[in-house]
Amino acid sequence: MSFALSEIGLNPSEIGQEMYRLISELYPICRSITGEGVRQTLRLVQRHIPLTIHEIPSGTKVFDWTVPKEWNIRDAYIGNARGERIVDFNKSNLHVVGYSVPVKKKVSLQELKEHLFTLPDCPDWIPYRTSYYKESWGFCLSHRQWSNLREEEYEVCIESSLEDGHLTYGELYLQGETTDEVLISCHTCHPSLCNDNLSGIALATFLAKILSPVRRRYSYRFLFIPGTIGSITWLCLNEAKVGQIKHGFVVTGVGDPGKSVYKKSRRGDAEIDKAFAHVLKDAGGDCEVIDFFPYGYDERQYCSPGFNLPVGCLMRTPHGRYPEYHTSADNLEFVQTPYLADSFAKALSVLHVIENNKTYRNLNPKCEPQLGRRGLYEMIGGQQEAKSREMAMLWVLNLADGSHTLLDIADRSGIYFHPRYRPPAGGTRTLNGLRPIAGSVVQPHG
Amino acid sequence: MSFALSEIGLNPSEIGQEMYRLISELYPICRSITGEGVRQTLRLVQRHIPLTIHEIPSGTKVFDWTVPKEWNIRDAYIGNARGERIVDFNKSNLHVVGYSVPVKKKVSLQELKEHLFTLPDCPDWIPYRTSYYKESWGFCLSHRQWSNLREEEYEVCIESSLEDGHLTYGELYLQGETTDEVLISCHTCHPSLCNDNLSGIALATFLAKILSPVRRRYSYRFLFIPGTIGSITWLCLNEAKVGQIKHGFVVTGVGDPGKSVYKKSRRGDAEIDKAFAHVLKDAGGDCEVIDFFPYGYDERQYCSPGFNLPVGCLMRTPHGRYPEYHTSADNLEFVQTPYLADSFAKALSVLHVIENNKTYRNLNPKCEPQLGRRGLYEMIGGQQEAKSREMAMLWVLNLADGSHTLLDIADRSGIYFHPRYRPPAGGTRTLNGLRPIAGSVVQPHG
Amino acid sequence: MSFALSEIGLNPSEIGQEMYRLISELYPICRSITGEGVRQTLRLVQRHIPLTIHEIPSGTKVFDWTVPKEWNIRDAYIGNARGERIVDFNKSNLHVVGYSVPVKKKVSLQELKEHLFTLPDCPDWIPYRTSYYKESWGFCLSHRQWSNLREEEYEVCIESSLEDGHLTYGELYLQGETTDEVLISCHTCHPSLCNDNLSGIALATFLAKILSPVRRRYSYRFLFIPGTIGSITWLCLNEAKVGQIKHGFVVTGVGDPGKSVYKKSRRGDAEIDKAFAHVLKDAGGDCEVIDFFPYGYDERQYCSPGFNLPVGCLMRTPHGRYPEYHTSADNLEFVQTPYLADSFAKALSVLHVIENNKTYRNLNPKCEPQLGRRGLYEMIGGQQEAKSREMAMLWVLNLADGSHTLLDIADRSGIYFHPRYRPPAGGTRTLNGLRPIAGSVVQPHG
Repeated sequence: MSFALSEIGLNPSEIGQEMYRLISELYPICRSITGEGVRQTLRLVQRHIPLTIHEIPSGTKVFDWTVPKEWNIRDAYIGNARGERIVDFNKSNLHVVGYSVPVKKKVSLQELKEHLFTLPDCPDWIPYRTSYYKESWGFCLSHRQWSNLREEEYEVCIESSLEDGHLTYGELYLQGETTDEVLISCHTCHPSLCNDNLSGIALATFLAKILSPVRRRYSYRFLFIPGTIGSITWLCLNEAKVGQIKHGFVVTGVGDPGKSVYKKSRRGDAEIDKAFAHVLKDAGGDCEVIDFFPYGYDERQYCSPGFNLPVGCLMRTPHGRYPEYHTSADNLEFVQTPYLADSFAKALSVLHVIENNKTYRNLNPKCEPQLGRRGLYEMIGGQQEAKSREMAMLWVLNLADGSHTLLDIADRSGIYFHPRYRPPAGGTRTLNGLRPIAGSVVQPHG
Repeated sequence: MSFALSEIGLNPSEIGQEMYRLISELYPICRSITGEGVRQTLRLVQRHIPLTIHEIPSGTKVFDWTVPKEWNIRDAYIGNARGERIVDFNKSNLHVVGYSVPVKKKVSLQELKEHLFTLPDCPDWIPYRTSYYKESWGFCLSHRQWSNLREEEYEVCIESSLEDGHLTYGELYLQGETTDEVLISCHTCHPSLCNDNLSGIALATFLAKILSPVRRRYSYRFLFIPGTIGSITWLCLNEAKVGQIKHGFVVTGVGDPGKSVYKKSRRGDAEIDKAFAHVLKDAGGDCEVIDFFPYGYDERQYCSPGFNLPVGCLMRTPHGRYPEYHTSADNLEFVQTPYLADSFAKALSVLHVIENNKTYRNLNPKCEPQLGRRGLYEMIGGQQEAKSREMAMLWVLNLADGSHTLLDIADRSGIYFHPRYRPPAGGTRTLNGLRPIAGSVVQPHG
Repeated sequence: MSFALSEIGLNPSEIGQEMYRLISELYPICRSITGEGVRQTLRLVQRHIPLTIHEIPSGTKVFDWTVPKEWNIRDAYIGNARGERIVDFNKSNLHVVGYSVPVKKKVSLQELKEHLFTLPDCPDWIPYRTSYYKESWGFCLSHRQWSNLREEEYEVCIESSLEDGHLTYGELYLQGETTDEVLISCHTCHPSLCNDNLSGIALATFLAKILSPVRRRYSYRFLFIPGTIGSITWLCLNEAKVGQIKHGFVVTGVGDPGKSVYKKSRRGDAEIDKAFAHVLKDAGGDCEVIDFFPYGYDERQYCSPGFNLPVGCLMRTPHGRYPEYHTSADNLEFVQTPYLADSFAKALSVLHVIENNKTYRNLNPKCEPQLGRRGLYEMIGGQQEAKSREMAMLWVLNLADGSHTLLDIADRSGIYFHPRYRPPAGGTRTLNGLRPIAGSVVQPHG
């Protein structure tokens, strides 16, 4: 058995803490779809895993799109008539609309307000806004502060640059026993927002770290890319490799207190969809599997009709369904270690299922094999109920006809795909379900 | 786009009233499966649409059946001993059993009662009875009147004729851009019964009228035929044309206050079945789609196994499920303008769906096209929820792979197939859902 | 029509009583998977049906198994220090663990207890235990008696023999009009346990008896075999015949007061599965159809992947779900005549469905045939509801297109597959549903 969870050395209780630590380090950096913030982010990830960093020049044509100019920012503020910085990029990088062009001038309150964004319903929070594809500038601030702005002259200053440069992304390829690939993708383009998507970056980083040393049937490709333009760029430049992707998922928003949600691939019945359904069903009522829809994250691109890849999306509360989404309240208090660890454990369990989900053929298909003389069956007959271990054996023997995968058998029998990997918070549930059965009885098919 | 609802000039609020007006004109006429009443009815319909009237001779063999003799009636009554007409055909044509042979004689109460039909459970109503295929005579009357009949001598008189003649039906063929046909069929054989089926005649008449001037992808065939023998006759004489029928429905009982009911074709998954399910689901809780069963109206013949046409049946309360059914209580008070208008609007919406339900292929299938630079997407990113208009675009782009019709996409996305056509009573619900998308992005497939 | 229930001469009210009488005769016999008890049992069954008795030598290889040595027992007891038999095989054959090797020695209480089995939760009942495939000896007794055993010297005596001999099973083959077979199988290996499986033996016996004289489309094969090793042996020695089995079921535990349960074959959609579902659905709420699982009775072998036969299992409360299961409480009071009769009636109804479930083709497929002139349809039209008899005709005519069986039509129409066969306890429900229709209209297909 490749990829035995027992081979994995890291203590799962520590993974949630390590994820949180990485999120804390990445939090202050001002990221966007291009620029120094992305490079800084990827360099911090490189402390854990040997990411390759790719630089794609501005102006590169990628399908219907063009790699944009690179945006960088050094400083930005709004000053009042007394020269005080009343809105300061150094206090929160959310204050500046992403991809704002440079500006330095005096403006009236009226002109200023045309460039301000607030959240009237959450008057203490700063919204997150961008203007990637239309040259513009703007500031975001709390609605409370906005309401108190007086009629006076203001100075606006954005020391940014929007120039030919590069789109930067990170990639880690772990060669497995086969060239069939599992794709795990997270977006790296958001500034100081923890759940969306430092949590996804952290989960992908530690999945890669934990998988590096173990035996893997599949090869794994981890992508740390800017949203939308990043996946489009990668798909365009790597179109020849796309056929190797057999399973995959996007990771985003995996640290909030909401229940785990898996959004199925466009196919809806891909093996990755079944594996997530199996693992989340077993995890109990606080999980949900939802149908694909063509909005959300980079699954939009992976699942565009010309690719239609078996790629879903693992998250907790879906984007836009929690008030903190895309605001300054998506901060280091909003994401919490137990939820990060729980999301991590579910992702790892799914990979374990995928790795071990083979199709067996019972070489003794006519009547049951005599399990008793192999020590695999109760010796004193007549007892009232078969043990679940024996039931698992009987199910595998009965359905191992070359047309059912182990996951099919697990689903039909209602027996969990052994073993579970749970963070300590998961409590004392014991491992049960399928255990290895005599090698002489079943062998991999074809 | 062919058949845009916006091209349709008639004010929908007036259609219900026009339907009711036509029903009122047709109500007094004594119809049967043959005879002058049918011709008179079709001539009144011809005031609205250029119906072709076909006359098929009695004795014509049509599959397992034979076109019957033509029945006409001038007068009929039961007289009491004092010579008073106590039951008079001139007061209600329901008083005479349809296809009664001529009779004029004195009878005892006992003999009379062998020829009388009443509704003991609804003692004030006159039932509707026929005896098409067995020569007989009879009268229908209220049970209350029947109970008061005294022992005396009665005179019965039916001045009818049952002679070789013709079966008469009306047909209107509207040539469309293709020879593929939509069949709309209603039965014309019932005497003074408003819901069954003057309502269906009126709906078919005004559908034909409203569709005549508009651009139509499909050709439309409207049949105004006597029930059972009429559809059998048409199918037999037009067997070569049957393959052109791609969609169709029978219209009956569409003016009563019950909820709208669509009975699926025998196939159960024809496009017409999906279109009705889509339109009725959108119309809310007061609608129902039911499975096919081999009883009811002419869908029995269209869906016989040798034809198995994609023809369902639009109605409101199904036949036999309302006490007024086939009684004198199915009158001008039972059918009402708002229900007629509502049924009309649903039928028209279904035709709009059918007309516009094409299969597109996204010519930019690899990753999403950049909608933003085409002005089709929000310019300031990071907002909390995509607009439904954008969602509709994204769904079409995602599923326009040549294997999903627009109706499939509408059903999967949960977005209504734009636009809705509602009578004024439908209130203020706005049109939303799919709107035209950039021509450069999708084009009809194949 | 072959196999008309009306041809069956036995009074159904008597069958339950006859089944109970046979159970009473078989109850005292000590059966096991081999030995004289099985032969004695089969000889009693032979009084009703002409069973062929097969003897298969010990040591015969049957797939992965070997026919075991033959076990016989003459006497067994535990004696106390005063020479009293405190546990006596002559009082209940459950007292001895099945397949116990001979033993005669003095033992301490401690050594004795290593060979004793009790049911602490049901302290008055004797459990049923066997040790077929591991040489061993033991006694079963009530927990109450076990608790009172004192520290003294005991004598254990088992006068058994475990020697080369034969595995014995009974078989009855009833030749039908075709060589296609229905397999009905019951296990004969349990000692004094009434529901499991003297009830199954009795049901199979009287089914065979009642079917012998009637015209049968199918051939029937009844097997009276020891559980597991018996079906494995039969399948191995008769592998060439297995392809003739078109339908089948195992019968077990059909006399307890629980609701009827049918466990589907591994295929899940075999005709036998649909027939049981149809009959049990009609029988009302006290019935259940459950999915296949690879545990239970000989359906495990018939449904092993190398055979995958359309064989389900008819029972009442499933094994292990009632406390009396495999204990001395599964006695002559636990099984009752009405439940035996009810199970019998359901099995017979299912066979009636299978026998008569043909596929017809409507020779008049284009429009309905004119039923009226054949006297098959109401003559006075306009009545409010069609009769169910006419509905059945219309359904058959509509769906008899060569691709629907009568059972398919019955299921789709919601009309019961005529006629019902009920024990008197079933009350006064009348027969309805499908009746024969005019021969000129439909005929068997292909």
